[in-house]
Amino acid sequence: MKRPWQGQVEPPLLTTVPRHDPHNPLCPGATRANGEVNPYYDGTFVFDNDFPALQPDAPNPGPSDHPLFQAEAARGVCKVMCFHPWSDVTLPLMSVPEIRTVIDAWASVTEELGARYPWVQIFENKGAMMGCSNPHPHCQVWASSFLPDIAQREERTQRAYQSQRGEPLLMEYGHQELLRKERLVLTSEHWLVLVPFWAVWPYQTLLLPRRHVRRLPELTPAERDDLASIMKKLLTKYDNLFETSFPYSMGWHGAPMGSDAGANWDHWQLHAHYYPPLLRSATIRKFMVGYEMLAQAQRDLTPEQAAERLRTLPEVHYRLGQK
Amino acid sequence: MKRPWQGQVEPPLLTTVPRHDPHNPLCPGATRANGEVNPYYDGTFVFDNDFPALQPDAPNPGPSDHPLFQAEAARGVCKVMCFHPWSDVTLPLMSVPEIRTVIDAWASVTEELGARYPWVQIFENKGAMMGCSNPHPHCQVWASSFLPDIAQREERTQRAYQSQRGEPLLMEYGHQELLRKERLVLTSEHWLVLVPFWAVWPYQTLLLPRRHVRRLPELTPAERDDLASIMKKLLTKYDNLFETSFPYSMGWHGAPMGSDAGANWDHWQLHAHYYPPLLRSATIRKFMVGYEMLAQAQRDLTPEQAAERLRTLPEVHYRLGQK
Ligand SMILES: O=P(O)(O)O[C@H]1O[C@H](CO)[C@@H](O)[C@H](O)[C@H]1O
Ligand SMILES: O=P(O)(O)O[C@H]1O[C@H](CO)[C@@H](O)[C@H](O)[C@H]1O
Repeated sequence: MKRPWQGQVEPPLLTTVPRHDPHNPLCPGATRANGEVNPYYDGTFVFDNDFPALQPDAPNPGPSDHPLFQAEAARGVCKVMCFHPWSDVTLPLMSVPEIRTVIDAWASVTEELGARYPWVQIFENKGAMMGCSNPHPHCQVWASSFLPDIAQREERTQRAYQSQRGEPLLMEYGHQELLRKERLVLTSEHWLVLVPFWAVWPYQTLLLPRRHVRRLPELTPAERDDLASIMKKLLTKYDNLFETSFPYSMGWHGAPMGSDAGANWDHWQLHAHYYPPLLRSATIRKFMVGYEMLAQAQRDLTPEQAAERLRTLPEVHYRLGQK
Repeated sequence: MKRPWQGQVEPPLLTTVPRHDPHNPLCPGATRANGEVNPYYDGTFVFDNDFPALQPDAPNPGPSDHPLFQAEAARGVCKVMCFHPWSDVTLPLMSVPEIRTVIDAWASVTEELGARYPWVQIFENKGAMMGCSNPHPHCQVWASSFLPDIAQREERTQRAYQSQRGEPLLMEYGHQELLRKERLVLTSEHWLVLVPFWAVWPYQTLLLPRRHVRRLPELTPAERDDLASIMKKLLTKYDNLFETSFPYSMGWHGAPMGSDAGANWDHWQLHAHYYPPLLRSATIRKFMVGYEMLAQAQRDLTPEQAAERLRTLPEVHYRLGQK
């Protein structure tokens, strides 16, 4: 962190997004690439991505003639979920009941797609720096016919821990972090937010329910309300850190579903990861390059330093409260 | 690749870098952060990084009280290697004999640090987009007391393949790619460049010797000359792709060294990885975000398409030849 920085500085964020732009395909009433017209929705709105990376009918590759050249069909569906009818808000600027609506929509889409697919990946790319190409508040949902690499790794490690120690890895982990306190950012009746011991992104966090919950649809109404409130607090702290609309990629991981949904997945604990790129300021990011790509992640600040910094930030948004 | 792009466009590259800047700590004759003055070097120049991420005397963390909270000391040294006395050149603009000097310096530093450390990671971050904070042509060398994550994975997979199939994985892989041809970019007497079957970055390549070579210092003079020449061709193609100084992170992987250097590492094959971020143009990159961070890499173009595109590009640099 003491290195002088003469490297790339990100372009300043667009600060004025119009509340409604009839040419933005995510806005109520807009016409999308496939000619469909969006309803005048007033809460969340879910539709099929017009440029899907996964398709339900991807053909099978031919048989392989060599162990080093193995391919499999990747089938699935890609959806987009708008969080709010207005383009000029983000989750931390939305009310707790509005965020609760998003949580309910996450639970429903998980249930719906999980009936057909073993993995339903909900993720939000927030900010142009995170490759987000549309400022309207939204996330994506990609459901797949296979467990993606990271899901497989989480399946393997959680299963191994449960079989060795007789309890879910993330239940014991959350319990330990509550005792140790140094990496905690926020706690509430039903949830914890902490900078994980293994964090590699500067202000990476892990959001965990206190109760053993395997998947989003299992959350009770009280847990959902409390989640909306702790998400608002976390994302407000993030925005306050550098007084900017804080970019990140976030996503939910829960037990696999699909035709094996009824198997024993008790080793799984629902959680969300937040991976934010900013390191030093609103315009200077952490680059995961060189040594990180070729060898191993190296940390520019410790998880304890990051947690301490996030803990001390106000829970009132810099654009809403008096300073 | 058909998705409309309204997302982040990278700032245009600095096109005029002064040949010599007495305040740039990488230039001949400049004074560095620690007060040392660089010699008036005329080839390559290696010095200790003034802001090292690894240090030889990192203290041991205390003993751990829990299986989920395990830490180990990471010891090592970080060096910087300037490729050329001038700031306004890059490898593809250097002559083949000048690139050969860089290769010799890579071999020497591997030998020197490999005497003390099991892993010597040579890597180049080229371009501001890849977090490079100094335009002077240079790479870094980080030697560590441990095998980094990716080295461990390559060790595991190469060892397993050798024990199951009786030959080095990357020897058989290169052999197969020579037969299949569709992913080849360049071949020479001693080297191959191809877009690997498993590529995730748009124009990712793998550079492999044809002979079974475990580490850089084992390369013969003829292999080094030929490497200089194929590197110049590859990097010229890269620059020609979008008519820009093409950004990338690259690095060398070879058999572990240190006190176990004498063990049997015949399952290893020396190779270099090139990971370039650009996808659509000189200013529109691939973002490894969202689904990639939380689930699995998804490819915007196939390795075969990328190889075809690179293959057809001229071997004369757009800034040097007539168009
Ligand atoms: O060493 P530099 O050029 O200061 O820093 C660059 O390379 C390092 C090693 O790949 C990365 O950890 C940094 O994020 C990057 O900005
Ligand atoms: O789906 P989008 O917003 O067009 O694209 C964005 O998210 C995708 C999924 O994380 C990434 O693969 C793309 O690189 C990124 O730009």
